[in-house]
Amino acid sequence: MQPLPGFRDFLPSDCARRNYIFGKWREVARRYGFVEWDGPILEPTELYRKKSGDEIVGQLFHFVDKGERDVALRPELTPTLARVVAAHEREFKKPLKWFSIGQFFRYEKQQRGRLREHFQLNCDIIGEASLTADIDLIALAIDLLRSFGLSETDVVIRLSDRQFWTDFLRSQGVAEDRWQEILEIIDKSERESPEKTKEKLGELAAPVFNLLAEGGKSNRLNEVMNGLHTRGLADYVNVDVRIVRGLAYYTGIVFEIFDRAGKLRAIAGGGRYDNLISQLSDGGAALPALGFAMGDVVLGELIGETARAREAMDKAIRDDHPIEIYIVIAKEERRESASRHIQALRDHGYRVDYPLTAAKVPKQFQTAEQLGARVAVLFGDEWPNVAVKNLASGEQQSVPQDKLLEHLKITLK
Amino acid sequence: MQPLPGFRDFLPSDCARRNYIFGKWREVARRYGFVEWDGPILEPTELYRKKSGDEIVGQLFHFVDKGERDVALRPELTPTLARVVAAHEREFKKPLKWFSIGQFFRYEKQQRGRLREHFQLNCDIIGEASLTADIDLIALAIDLLRSFGLSETDVVIRLSDRQFWTDFLRSQGVAEDRWQEILEIIDKSERESPEKTKEKLGELAAPVFNLLAEGGKSNRLNEVMNGLHTRGLADYVNVDVRIVRGLAYYTGIVFEIFDRAGKLRAIAGGGRYDNLISQLSDGGAALPALGFAMGDVVLGELIGETARAREAMDKAIRDDHPIEIYIVIAKEERRESASRHIQALRDHGYRVDYPLTAAKVPKQFQTAEQLGARVAVLFGDEWPNVAVKNLASGEQQSVPQDKLLEHLKITLK
Repeated sequence: MQPLPGFRDFLPSDCARRNYIFGKWREVARRYGFVEWDGPILEPTELYRKKSGDEIVGQLFHFVDKGERDVALRPELTPTLARVVAAHEREFKKPLKWFSIGQFFRYEKQQRGRLREHFQLNCDIIGEASLTADIDLIALAIDLLRSFGLSETDVVIRLSDRQFWTDFLRSQGVAEDRWQEILEIIDKSERESPEKTKEKLGELAAPVFNLLAEGGKSNRLNEVMNGLHTRGLADYVNVDVRIVRGLAYYTGIVFEIFDRAGKLRAIAGGGRYDNLISQLSDGGAALPALGFAMGDVVLGELIGETARAREAMDKAIRDDHPIEIYIVIAKEERRESASRHIQALRDHGYRVDYPLTAAKVPKQFQTAEQLGARVAVLFGDEWPNVAVKNLASGEQQSVPQDKLLEHLKITLK
Repeated sequence: MQPLPGFRDFLPSDCARRNYIFGKWREVARRYGFVEWDGPILEPTELYRKKSGDEIVGQLFHFVDKGERDVALRPELTPTLARVVAAHEREFKKPLKWFSIGQFFRYEKQQRGRLREHFQLNCDIIGEASLTADIDLIALAIDLLRSFGLSETDVVIRLSDRQFWTDFLRSQGVAEDRWQEILEIIDKSERESPEKTKEKLGELAAPVFNLLAEGGKSNRLNEVMNGLHTRGLADYVNVDVRIVRGLAYYTGIVFEIFDRAGKLRAIAGGGRYDNLISQLSDGGAALPALGFAMGDVVLGELIGETARAREAMDKAIRDDHPIEIYIVIAKEERRESASRHIQALRDHGYRVDYPLTAAKVPKQFQTAEQLGARVAVLFGDEWPNVAVKNLASGEQQSVPQDKLLEHLKITLK
């Protein structure tokens, strides 16, 4: 009687928290002028092999369908984005600013903050080479977190520039086919001993450690920091060139977002990938691009552990009353009249509930309270008047039934 | 460069229509006091075999995962509902009124109105035996359609009572193990010749055809019709006892919803299934229950073909401006000041866009129009004032920059 390992049931309280996160994601992405799109949950496995090589297949839910197609539950959105953009980009003015909220799947060992499915917000800008796009995208990532009540004391954006490193490697005369290997060593250096890293880097160890000690400087990083400073968001950001992101396809500014305390996995990550769409679409569309993804699991953990954010979420859910009006049927002979009023109130958009079978009046009021209703309307002895009770104040008024809608419009404003 | 056969990409305009449908579904279900929940998209294949027998497996996307589990993409929600309700029902007061919006999958031949995935609204009431629940559920199904601007001239609810038939079979002394077979013959009788049906029914042909000719009468159907009449919804409903629904698990009132013209597949269907939760949960929870599902594909087709509904959808999407304010940067030296204002306006919840690179002013205004912005704010020669242009009326005003937010609050109210 359990879901599969790594999969979640969303009971109503879980679903309310999920919808709260989705709602903020959607609202803030739209403030930035992003429009929503989506792709299929099932794609040809080849789409992922093309981008990430055969090793990704080891982490996929994939199978051969009844039509002999090798198909996979999507592990990420970018390959679908490249497919869709290559097929349709001519229909749209550049840059595209697209976001998507969807579910993704990986067959991985379950750990804290990592399940076999999660929901992700993806935000991408397609067809824009200027650094202003990088600044706007990072500002969006920060504002998403701010919308949950998370501040610069709770989260940090670690900002880096992959081109800073590729320029360095070029200046050192390192052959291009060794770049990815060295970038991965730098990416891992935080989690390994300096000795180990030095050994791996060989003759590059001294200049790399010098650069890391200097903290990394680049005009591009300065420009991004200035842009975020203008927007009042610089306190959220640390320049940290140790971040290069393992994936080979990033070409410029990259970033990862963590909780300040450093207890959790990454909340989000992304950067510029100017060559990827062309590669994935077999040269179908050569468009500079950048984007990031933010998952619901680690974010949900951080909201839960941060008092300010948790209280904001709880309040928002509480204020979104599942029921506004509860109809108390004190006498069964009033049920038919009550039904007419229930229909009219629902037609006006109110959330209305009532007892489906006869029940004692105190029990009905108890149900009204439990459902979080704002008012109870009693169909009983005062007929043809009804009694409207404000459940917060306890105040009760007798209202002619033909004035009920008007009365509630004012009370519930 | 195509999605898999039977799967859809949702470009921004498709996604807007999808979100419009989801939004109405959510809004109207909540008016009726339903709360949202969800289950996993992947479940053990056994869960579906248990309910529907081995033949369902032929229509599933199912496979053996890396942990040797036989798993399936969910074809429907009810088995998951039974699993979750059996595990958690003690935590909730009855009746549960739960709805869910999610994606479902079947490996079937593609036809009009039938893909290999679709989205479905599921609404279920758990733990309530009274007919009032059936009435409220059908009223909800009707109000969902009304919310899209569909009227009784566009859609019809075909209402039936499976118990009407089981009472009849009992009265005829037919053994219970033959009921399902006979019910399926009646269900198919619409699509077969009367001769064929008569032949299949044998000695039951005469009484069955009598009942069909009478149109079917039952106290229960009368009570449901009266309830819908009280709510002003009876014109949407035809009693039609030919509907018995093929699935064995229905026990009482059942219904299917079609377009009046009869051109499309069913828009929705459901009914009472008082024994199913107990069966599916191995006796874990004996709870009367009822529910229905409504898919997005046929509904979307009907909205598209019904002028009133299509116009309402187009208007709602248009009125939900992707961009409210477009910032025109007439001089690049104003970009930094503009950035500060953009950040402040977004912080106040406005949807704001601007050119990421330098562009000619007329081109920027053109972009503002294309994005559907309501106002353009020009940062240029009037500095330290800015020019606010109402894009609908063409009216333009010079506003001191420190009064911009205040001015826009009034303009965009």
